[in-house]
Amino acid sequence: MPVAKKSDFPVSEVRRFMEPGPIVLVSSAHKGERDIMTMGWHMVMGFEPSLIGCYIWDQNHSHGLIRKSRECVINVPTADMAAKIAGIGNSSGRETDKFEAFRLTPVKADEVSAPMIGECHANLECRLVDSSLIRTYSLFIFEVVKAHARKAPRTPKMLHYTGEGIFITSGRTVNHRKSFKPGML
Amino acid sequence: MPVAKKSDFPVSEVRRFMEPGPIVLVSSAHKGERDIMTMGWHMVMGFEPSLIGCYIWDQNHSHGLIRKSRECVINVPTADMAAKIAGIGNSSGRETDKFEAFRLTPVKADEVSAPMIGECHANLECRLVDSSLIRTYSLFIFEVVKAHARKAPRTPKMLHYTGEGIFITSGRTVNHRKSFKPGML
Repeated sequence: MPVAKKSDFPVSEVRRFMEPGPIVLVSSAHKGERDIMTMGWHMVMGFEPSLIGCYIWDQNHSHGLIRKSRECVINVPTADMAAKIAGIGNSSGRETDKFEAFRLTPVKADEVSAPMIGECHANLECRLVDSSLIRTYSLFIFEVVKAHARKAPRTPKMLHYTGEGIFITSGRTVNHRKSFKPGML
Repeated sequence: MPVAKKSDFPVSEVRRFMEPGPIVLVSSAHKGERDIMTMGWHMVMGFEPSLIGCYIWDQNHSHGLIRKSRECVINVPTADMAAKIAGIGNSSGRETDKFEAFRLTPVKADEVSAPMIGECHANLECRLVDSSLIRTYSLFIFEVVKAHARKAPRTPKMLHYTGEGIFITSGRTVNHRKSFKPGML
């Protein structure tokens, strides 16, 4: 997984990567500190504005960095990054710089100060737009303000987490476009 | 996809089916009316209680049935049900009884009055526990109060939606159990 060349991707279309429910890597930075966490609990909440709800536990080191900076990048990794994803999820940013420990390349984002992960298929630059549900539900509501993705493939082979250390990869594409009403596409 | 024989499944472990992010079928009933909708925007929000956040648009016929009855069943379909899933997402419960139209079998639930879909791999009986975010975000927070699943396979081949009429199926299982700390499993 070399650093991928990416193009601008429409923020209103990031469902393509997020709605299938992959495990993602969230990168953040605040006052000279940076971190990466794995995240499996997230959902699309709107197209325009492009909203994503994320559960970020307050025991995660990233929680504080994101709450204070009010920014992050949601990075969509590919299935070949499974070992790094598991490793990142099982180490703490309190002790480790995860970019160094997992040999991932920080790339400067355009709109936020959190670094993007170069090796990932897509990078979604996010701004925290509603922090009112953090205390009750650990729920951060982000707006995707800028997105980047590899031009191909349309969707990469991603990883989905099922608990107990077991992932499933994205498999075959099934096109049901013909069954859809135009307004539903 | 015949009606599946199922066993009780621990509500605290329903992440197994929901965290991978499959497209699901939500069944509901209120005052003699019933409906099924497809749903791709959902997230796990806790283990105990077992919480799931769901985006249910107010233009969906099911929205009213669920808001009024404060109950639903989240049914996890398998990839071989793709044509039905696409059909259900592209028709309205205002005009059609979807159980009849798509030849799905309503099965009586234990804790809620919404019918379960017999053909699905798993059925999660849900009660609405927080309705305060429906107006702003169309976000329903449900507690899974009872769950049923086929005994095997551990996870079925599911469908994940990427927009534009295109689904991807769940693929291969990747076991990274050895990389996990005991407390993280």
